[in-house]
Order: sequence, then C-alpha cells, then structure tokens
Amino acid sequence: MTIKANSLDLYPLFNPQSVAVIGASENPAKLGSHVMRSLIEGGFAGRIVPVNPKSKAIMGIAAWASVTDFPETLDLAIVVVPAKLAPSIFHECRQKKVRGMVLITAGFKEIEDPEGGRQQDRLRNMALEAGIPVIGPNTFGMINLHRNLNASFTPEFSKIEKGKVALVSQSGGISHLMAFLALPQNVRFSKIVGLGNRLNVDFAEMLDFLMADPDTEVIALYLEGLDNPGRLLQAAAGRREKPVIAYKTGSARTGNQASLSHTGSLAGNHAIYRGALHQAGIFYAPSSQALLDLAQVLSVCARPGGPRVAILTGQAGPGMAACDVIEGQGLQMATFGAATQAAINAFLPPLAMRSNPVDMGPAWYDSGAIQGIVKAAAEDDGVDGIILLMMFASANREALPNLAPFLLQWQQRKPVIACCAAPPGIWDADLDRLQQSDALVNLPTPERAAEAMAALCRYTAMITPDGRKSS
Amino acid sequence: MTIKANSLDLYPLFNPQSVAVIGASENPAKLGSHVMRSLIEGGFAGRIVPVNPKSKAIMGIAAWASVTDFPETLDLAIVVVPAKLAPSIFHECRQKKVRGMVLITAGFKEIEDPEGGRQQDRLRNMALEAGIPVIGPNTFGMINLHRNLNASFTPEFSKIEKGKVALVSQSGGISHLMAFLALPQNVRFSKIVGLGNRLNVDFAEMLDFLMADPDTEVIALYLEGLDNPGRLLQAAAGRREKPVIAYKTGSARTGNQASLSHTGSLAGNHAIYRGALHQAGIFYAPSSQALLDLAQVLSVCARPGGPRVAILTGQAGPGMAACDVIEGQGLQMATFGAATQAAINAFLPPLAMRSNPVDMGPAWYDSGAIQGIVKAAAEDDGVDGIILLMMFASANREALPNLAPFLLQWQQRKPVIACCAAPPGIWDADLDRLQQSDALVNLPTPERAAEAMAALCRYTAMITPDGRKSS
Repeated sequence: MTIKANSLDLYPLFNPQSVAVIGASENPAKLGSHVMRSLIEGGFAGRIVPVNPKSKAIMGIAAWASVTDFPETLDLAIVVVPAKLAPSIFHECRQKKVRGMVLITAGFKEIEDPEGGRQQDRLRNMALEAGIPVIGPNTFGMINLHRNLNASFTPEFSKIEKGKVALVSQSGGISHLMAFLALPQNVRFSKIVGLGNRLNVDFAEMLDFLMADPDTEVIALYLEGLDNPGRLLQAAAGRREKPVIAYKTGSARTGNQASLSHTGSLAGNHAIYRGALHQAGIFYAPSSQALLDLAQVLSVCARPGGPRVAILTGQAGPGMAACDVIEGQGLQMATFGAATQAAINAFLPPLAMRSNPVDMGPAWYDSGAIQGIVKAAAEDDGVDGIILLMMFASANREALPNLAPFLLQWQQRKPVIACCAAPPGIWDADLDRLQQSDALVNLPTPERAAEAMAALCRYTAMITPDGRKSS
Repeated sequence: MTIKANSLDLYPLFNPQSVAVIGASENPAKLGSHVMRSLIEGGFAGRIVPVNPKSKAIMGIAAWASVTDFPETLDLAIVVVPAKLAPSIFHECRQKKVRGMVLITAGFKEIEDPEGGRQQDRLRNMALEAGIPVIGPNTFGMINLHRNLNASFTPEFSKIEKGKVALVSQSGGISHLMAFLALPQNVRFSKIVGLGNRLNVDFAEMLDFLMADPDTEVIALYLEGLDNPGRLLQAAAGRREKPVIAYKTGSARTGNQASLSHTGSLAGNHAIYRGALHQAGIFYAPSSQALLDLAQVLSVCARPGGPRVAILTGQAGPGMAACDVIEGQGLQMATFGAATQAAINAFLPPLAMRSNPVDMGPAWYDSGAIQGIVKAAAEDDGVDGIILLMMFASANREALPNLAPFLLQWQQRKPVIACCAAPPGIWDADLDRLQQSDALVNLPTPERAAEAMAALCRYTAMITPDGRKSS
C-alpha cells in the first residue's frame, strides 16, 4: 500500500529553529564534517545539534548520542549515516517528532542490488506514516539562502547571493554546476534543493510549496526521469503566478540508461516529455546554461509586451550576431517610429547604422548621445525589449559608466539584456551595481543575450496566448 | 583598372623593426593616444616613431612632422588621421618606402556617401601600385603577440597570452569580444587581425600568409560579407595543413542589411556560404563562443581517431547532459573493451554507473581509483576522446589536484576536454597549470565540453573523409 504525500508540510523542513546532524563528525573524510561546516559557516541562526554516539562535542558544539537524548524540540534532521542504519534513525526521528529530514545517505533505489529499492520503499512508508517530509535519499541536501540554512555537504553553497530563483534538481552535479556558474554571473537564489531519489518529496510537492513561498519568484527545475510525470504536470498546470522553467536530460539512448542507474528512474521519451511540459506551462530550456540565463532574466526583467526587439550596439559585428539569433528564433527586429528614428539620426553621424540594429560607436565620446539613443529606443511603443551591446575599447571606457545612471533610473520598464564585455577589472563594478539593482542582465556574448531575450519573449507568449501584455 | 594583390608580402607588416604612428597624440580623446599606449605598454622592442606636425614629443618619444622627415627606414605605418588626409599620407608612405600600413581611419566604403567608396578605390590603387599591403581601413588594427606588436587602438589586447590561434575578423567588436572571452578561458593567440574594409588585404591574403606563419597552427575567421568569396575558398581549398574554422553572421534579413552598412559588403545567402565553406575545408562554427572553444580545442588537443567518446564524470547528471550532446551530434558513446570494463569495475563499488558514462563519484576519496579509471579509459583502443567532468564539493576537493600529475604526464595522446567547475579560487591554479601545459581544455559546462568534442571529431572527419587517422 502506498500512502499519499499530499498533506506533508514542507515549511518546517525549510524553516527550522533547530537542526540535528545525525552522523556529525570532525573528520574531513566524512560527509558529516562538511554538513557541520555548511551549517556553521553558513551562519544558521538556530540551534545546531550534532549527533554522534562516539563524540562529546563536534566543532565546539555539544554532541548527543541520539536525537532522542536531546531534551528540546528538533525541527530538522540531516542524516549522513550509512544506509543500513537509516531505519533505526527513522524510528528515532519519528519518536522525537522531527518535522523534516534531509537524507543525504546513498545506497537505495539507485544501486544494482534490488534490496536498495525495497529499503527505500520501507523508509518511504515509515516517513509517510509519521508525516515527515524527507529530501533525498542520495542527495547533497538543500539550502535555504534567506534563512542562512545550508543543509548540504557543500559549505561553498553559502557564497551564493540571496535572491528570487529556486532551483529544484534531480542531480547534485547539475546543482553544483549551476551554483558555481551563478557566482560570477550574479544570479541570486532563494533555495537550491537536491531531490535525489525522492522518497516522499518530489517535483510536485516542491512546486506546490514554492508557489506559496514568498522568497521565490522563479522556479527552475532540472529533470532526468520521473516515476509519475502526471503529478508534476498537474501541479504546474494553470498555475502561472510564477514562471516554471525546466531543463531535462536523457534524450540520448545511453543517457536514458544512465538515468535509471542514477536516481532510479528512466528518463523516458524526450519529445513526449517536452510536449507535456509545454502543455502544463513549464518552459523548456535546452541546456544548464540556458536554464540559468533564463532564470536570471525572469527574476530581473520586466515582461515584454511582444516580440519586437531593438539592438543598440557599440560595434556592428556583435549587433549582427544578436540580430541573427533574434530573427532565427522567430522574434522581430523592431521598426522605430518616425520620432524615434529622427531622434537617433540627430545623435549620430552618417557613417553609423542608424536603423535597428543601431551602431552607437560613432557617439562613444558623447555620453549624452548614447543616453539619448537608448532613451529614444526605450520609450518607443514599437519596442518590446532592448539588447544593449558594448565591447570595451580604451576609447569607450566611460561609455558604460556614463550610461549607468540612466539605466538605474529607468529600471527596466521594458526588459534590457546586455552584453557589455571588457577585460577583468574595468567595468566589473558598474555591471555589478547595474545587475544588483535589477537594471539589466549582463551575459557574456551577444548571442547569449539574444537567446535569453528570445526565451523571455517566447515564455511570455506561452503564458499569455491571447497576446495580452502580462503584468 | 584593378591591380592584383597576389604579390603583396605581409611579413614586414607583421614583423616590423620600426613603426610610425601617423596621428600620434597624448590626448586620450584621440585614437592616436591609445595606439601609442598599445605599442609602448605592449612592449614592442623595435623603434616607435610618433608622427604629428604639432608635437615635438609624444609620451616621451621624439615626434616627427611627417614620415618623410624621419631619417631612418620605416617598416610599418599605423594611420589614425581623418579620412580626408589619407591620400597625402599614402603619398608620403610610398615615398618613404614603408612596407606595410594599418589604416585605422574610418569613413570610406562603409559610409552612406558614395564618395567614401570612391576614395577607398583610389587608396587601393595607390597601395597596390606601391606594393604596400594595408590592413583596414575602418579597423581597430592588429596585434602580433609573438612580436609584442600591438598595432591597435586597444592596449588591453596585450594582456592576451601568446599561443597558436590566429583570429582574422571582419569586425572589431567580435575581435574584442573574443579577446575578452579568451582571457579567463586560457585561449592563447598568435595574431588578432581586424580586416575592416579590406583595402588590399582580404581573407585570402591572410590565409596564404598564416598558412606559412610558424607561430600559427589554427586559423579562426569571423566573416560577414565578402566581395569575392571565391578567392577565400580557393585560398583554403586543399590546404589542410592547418585547421581553418569560421563563424559567419548575416543569416538574418536585417543583419544582411547591417553588413552592407558595416563593412560595405552584403552578407549574402547564408546557406550557400555555409556549403561553400565546407567544400573548401573551412569548418563552420555556429557562434562566437563556439568559434573560440573550437579554436582552443584545435590548438591544444590531439586529433581523435574516430567518433567514440568516453565520459568520465564525478556526478551522474553532468554526465547525462554531455551524453545527450554527444549522441545528439552524431558521435558515439564508446563501448569499453572487456579489460577496460573489468579494470573500471574493480575500482568502483556497485552503487556507481560503471559503464560509459562512468560515475567516478563513489571513488572520490581514493585518488588512485580515479587515476586508474581515467588511465583505463584513455588506454582503451575503442575510445577516441575523453570528456572529464568534475563538479567540486568539499568532499572531492583533492580529486582534481590528485589527478593532475597523471594528466600532465599522459599529455593528450587522445583529446581530453573537461568541465571541472568550482567556486573561484579552489581549482584555478590546477586548471591553469593543466591548460597551460596543453594537458586538457577546460570549459564551463558539460554541454560546452561535449559540443567542443563533437566539433573536434566532426572537423577531423571532414578533413580525413577516408576515415584515416590524422596525425
């Protein structure tokens, strides 16, 4: 008999007052030491309770032989003991009335031995009877950045900036990858959750929880295979208050087999998945980098009212590269209104391209002209989004700093996606300030900026099929 | 009458003993000041000759009113005066018998006024009569890194590391972009050349020159439109001693128009170009980033003997992402020989994926096992290339440092393309050492690593259509 997970309350799991680490250690060869460091170095403000029958104290914090020995209430238990000890740990956690668990331990449904799957089923029924939601098993854990709760074996996750993107992932490797990519890219997260084998918390439960989570505005999913795709699609369908975007691997024959070995589920037919995700309003991203770029853009940018894009560029070549992507992905190069075109023409000499894409290069030495061009395009009703491209040269060093105050003040009434590229140390501070103020998203190539704009426009069109402008 | 450019000697242009800057300045609002800084800060070892009738000295170097006043020989003249002065400058350079020119000045064929095109034609005939090869007009210039010759208006180009990739570009913006991307990515260049309007040095002349250039092993082209595509194709056809790869924009309707305004040539029919490039043995890259990644891989990696790829990964998810790309691009996941598979099985517990892709994660604490797995796969005759994926976690911090000595010693008898990702400051030194020793290429995502491997295999198959292994 299978017990339903619907009634599980994930709030205490992600917002605990007290956290036990079952299998805590000081030995860096043990995951229990990394989990302890994650909690301590991450600045968790609640009680940390190391559990290890062989230690009196771990990292300067009093340790307990068992959770049942700890006299106060315990909200969350993070488990890093070997798989064979998991059933007795589950009994103790149930006795202790913990309200959530993160089961990092591996060796269940993903192993070759079928006993792993049976063991996982037994734990699942125990957890559901006790009403305890469990992240894992076979996971790196999770992090709730807004609570400084790093419940993972990777202390470095705490370096990520706090923001609005939640990542729910079936792979620890992809979670780590995206976190490391996010650091230099200025992508800010609310939560990163490694679902692992999904004992009783699957994508559907996470989606329900995150839709109501005030810290989360964009939900990014990394999928391999699902036991019950219908539940995720049902959870997503019709819920368009927050964007849900997904990257899914397993399109390859070999990858599909790998999925089975990885988290115990076949990846299934890729094309069918893709269609079903689309029908449920989940936007498909074609790679880990595309998922991250789109999550960033959705968390920062205003929604475009249509597919008409203006490309304002300091150099013609990058403008052409962006233009190819925009038209190749079915968007339109905006036609400027007469007043806009006249304003732009007045700012530029005849040797520039003055229609879209606009080559602003000849105005490098005149920051008023560049600001005037951006303003004219931004205020044109026929422009739904702006791609801003500036490749640094010594002669245009001040172009971005001079434009920044306008962009900060204008604050994305329409989406602005940029590729402003310079050697390290030149424009970094300006770009950080612009991105941290949500004035724009800056990506490393013109093509990626254009792809992100195309994804943003196509996402917006998907959720507003009648053509109405979304808020 | 049009004079042929065939007999131009580009060697003195790229290897001058003395360089004049015509229009040199100390005023940072003038390009002439940036060119002076490029030469000085770039460490050019020859004579620098500022030319400016209004100055006695510029940046501490004696200045001359005209090149004809300078008493010694002059090899290269870099010109940054306004377009209307260009004819008289050309006369003086001819009198002075300079052996090459870089004409940074804009305002010729790319402007709306047809007089610009006529002026360019007059200069072209003057240069050809005098036998002077001219880079430009309407260019940022060029840099020959192995001679510390930064003949551009961007001093920051001198920060690029010396290497084997030559970039020849029709766009200054794309050249700057790729240079800035190259810095953190460890791509090393021999030359970067901005062709601009191609007065008498076009892609064909550059290809002839670079095929004989001992510093260059890979030739990367950025194309928009060509006046005479046949000459490039002819120059490339049958010359397979060095890889030639190209990225071309202008596929979009609007971009094609932009090309005309940019460097005076229509981009033309994209599909026809692509087919023609392929026939001439020029491999097509779909984006600026793909061009850079493939240039790096071709300059570092051994050539694969076939399309059979092994993916060795620390985590299953990134392995699946790479696997999807490999199979999606028509390559094959290698099947290990019995001895290889037995060796790998012996290193890993049952809870890992032990066939290709190999999940090495369970061996993190055993650096001998990881080295053994990589060695077994590398030495398998059924494996043509290796993708190595490692996402940092605290528990595997030593995995890459421990593997590095093996990779340094093994030195790419087969191509190794990696995605080893960590927060800044953790694996940087190891990865720099591995890349600077050409032991591997490291790219930021598993998908990009797999795409680069696919491009490498497809390039190799293109130039060896009979299936023979290239050297």
